[in-house]
Amino acid sequence: MADSNEYRRPRGAGLGNLPERVDVYEVGPRDGLQNELRTLPTRDKARLIEALIAAGEKRIEVTSFVSPKWIPQLADAEELLRLVGRREGVTFSALVPNLKGLARAKEAGLEEAAVFISASEAHSKKNINKTIAEAVAEARQTTEAALKAGLRVRGYLSTVWGCPYEGEVPISRVVEISRALVDGGIYQLSLGDTIGVGTPRQTDAILSALLEHLPVEKLALHLHDTRGTALANALVGLQMGVTTFDASIGGLGGCPYAPGAAGNLATEDLVYMLHGMGVQTGIQLDKLVEAGMVAQELIGRKLAGKFLQAALGEREKKANRRATT
Amino acid sequence: MADSNEYRRPRGAGLGNLPERVDVYEVGPRDGLQNELRTLPTRDKARLIEALIAAGEKRIEVTSFVSPKWIPQLADAEELLRLVGRREGVTFSALVPNLKGLARAKEAGLEEAAVFISASEAHSKKNINKTIAEAVAEARQTTEAALKAGLRVRGYLSTVWGCPYEGEVPISRVVEISRALVDGGIYQLSLGDTIGVGTPRQTDAILSALLEHLPVEKLALHLHDTRGTALANALVGLQMGVTTFDASIGGLGGCPYAPGAAGNLATEDLVYMLHGMGVQTGIQLDKLVEAGMVAQELIGRKLAGKFLQAALGEREKKANRRATT
Repeated sequence: MADSNEYRRPRGAGLGNLPERVDVYEVGPRDGLQNELRTLPTRDKARLIEALIAAGEKRIEVTSFVSPKWIPQLADAEELLRLVGRREGVTFSALVPNLKGLARAKEAGLEEAAVFISASEAHSKKNINKTIAEAVAEARQTTEAALKAGLRVRGYLSTVWGCPYEGEVPISRVVEISRALVDGGIYQLSLGDTIGVGTPRQTDAILSALLEHLPVEKLALHLHDTRGTALANALVGLQMGVTTFDASIGGLGGCPYAPGAAGNLATEDLVYMLHGMGVQTGIQLDKLVEAGMVAQELIGRKLAGKFLQAALGEREKKANRRATT
Repeated sequence: MADSNEYRRPRGAGLGNLPERVDVYEVGPRDGLQNELRTLPTRDKARLIEALIAAGEKRIEVTSFVSPKWIPQLADAEELLRLVGRREGVTFSALVPNLKGLARAKEAGLEEAAVFISASEAHSKKNINKTIAEAVAEARQTTEAALKAGLRVRGYLSTVWGCPYEGEVPISRVVEISRALVDGGIYQLSLGDTIGVGTPRQTDAILSALLEHLPVEKLALHLHDTRGTALANALVGLQMGVTTFDASIGGLGGCPYAPGAAGNLATEDLVYMLHGMGVQTGIQLDKLVEAGMVAQELIGRKLAGKFLQAALGEREKKANRRATT
């Protein structure tokens, strides 16, 4: 047998310290639903948001003030916000692309706006028909006006890990845009792996470069699980001190044209991993499963979230056992 | 703007060094198929194994010499080994539970045997109707005889991260059994998260305890992705120097009673993450997708592997684009 003195861990790193508590920023009602082909009734969206609140979620992006022409699914932003009302301790946010969107958001009584930028020129052009420089200028203008109107402003930077049109995106550009947005007054920047191509080494490189210039509190990770790497990337973020992670109930947000393919990191998968490591979230996992069931019912198909499917499988097994004994 | 000298990475760890190369140990044909309700024809299993070899896989567990009464799906072990023959540079292995199984394995010309033990008393009793002590004694007896017959012997320790009947399994017991098996002559012990409950902090704790007594080369990780945490756990293993990971093509091995629920870590998801970090495997990812398509065709349903579904979605999109332009 190996002598217990002979062998020592060759790499002593292990996990290191992790944050004690993490904020989950729920994007299912917005980022998730905006990819759905069938437009849901406003009351169904409100029902999903209620289920998320019941699970203990405190930061929920509920809709978008982008032009209804662009995203018909989210055209009912005002009505939805009226329907869900205000909740003690819960912050609702919405995408706000420009001053026009901001005017609507203010009118609707929104407390937190999210501006968004792509780190890829090609993606920026395709998505919003602006260069990055134009988009940054507009985001800063919107941020300034939103701050003046008393809203908090969050930022999204998409395609950070890769672009569907350009491929790899230079980290130096990510750093430059991030600094400009933070300088413009956003309280937090959410870094998006929009197409879910990221791997942990890359996450380390991106965060390392950004943390030379920005405090870790300013950063959040918005990971997609398209190739199964979202939680591994999240783990790297945790190891580097990131304490806000975006996630979508059930993994809502997969491309509807590719059934079975995963989209956003599922909230339950993230929370399960965090709780398993003793990292607190204030969220109840069993109630997230209830919310996931609501989401599946509303969109009429199974979601890709693994914890959700495992939990539903367990429930079915128990029900069958009861039925046969 | 944040002064670039003001903020520094609060936790300097990042990823650290990772191994340059990793061995993938494919378990789809055995661990994957044994959960399938419909018994596949032997020629179909051989076709799947051919596809895995074509992708560059070098270590493949193809079947089991457990009594055919226990696992009818794998009752054709001899015929399958005859059909696939010997391949330069590829090692086929099979489960060998006892001396009776070993006699069959030797007769069939098997080069590598795998013995298996559970780290949970309740699981051991349910699975093979033996206490852990009895099972360890038998595994050591089988190992000794297999080594004498010129076979290499690998070991599996299941339910290391948790047991479906007992819940948490004490790490001290895992260490004790692992030492006894390695002492018995196995060249490698594969630690199994049989029900896919593991989270990274726990993986760190388990490996840290084992590495006090065993060299990292002796250890492999056999992770299930039931709750989406397999790659995050694999990443911890990599950070601690583990260089062998078990995986199953397409994630084959989910419970057939829980459609949509994930089972084994998907080979493609693992290889995608490894290649993305510059860790070599000698495997061609695009050909793994081909093998995943074969697996889906043979079992007649979609598999849970995320990379596979993303790749198939991409292919479908391209095909549609060609069809419409």
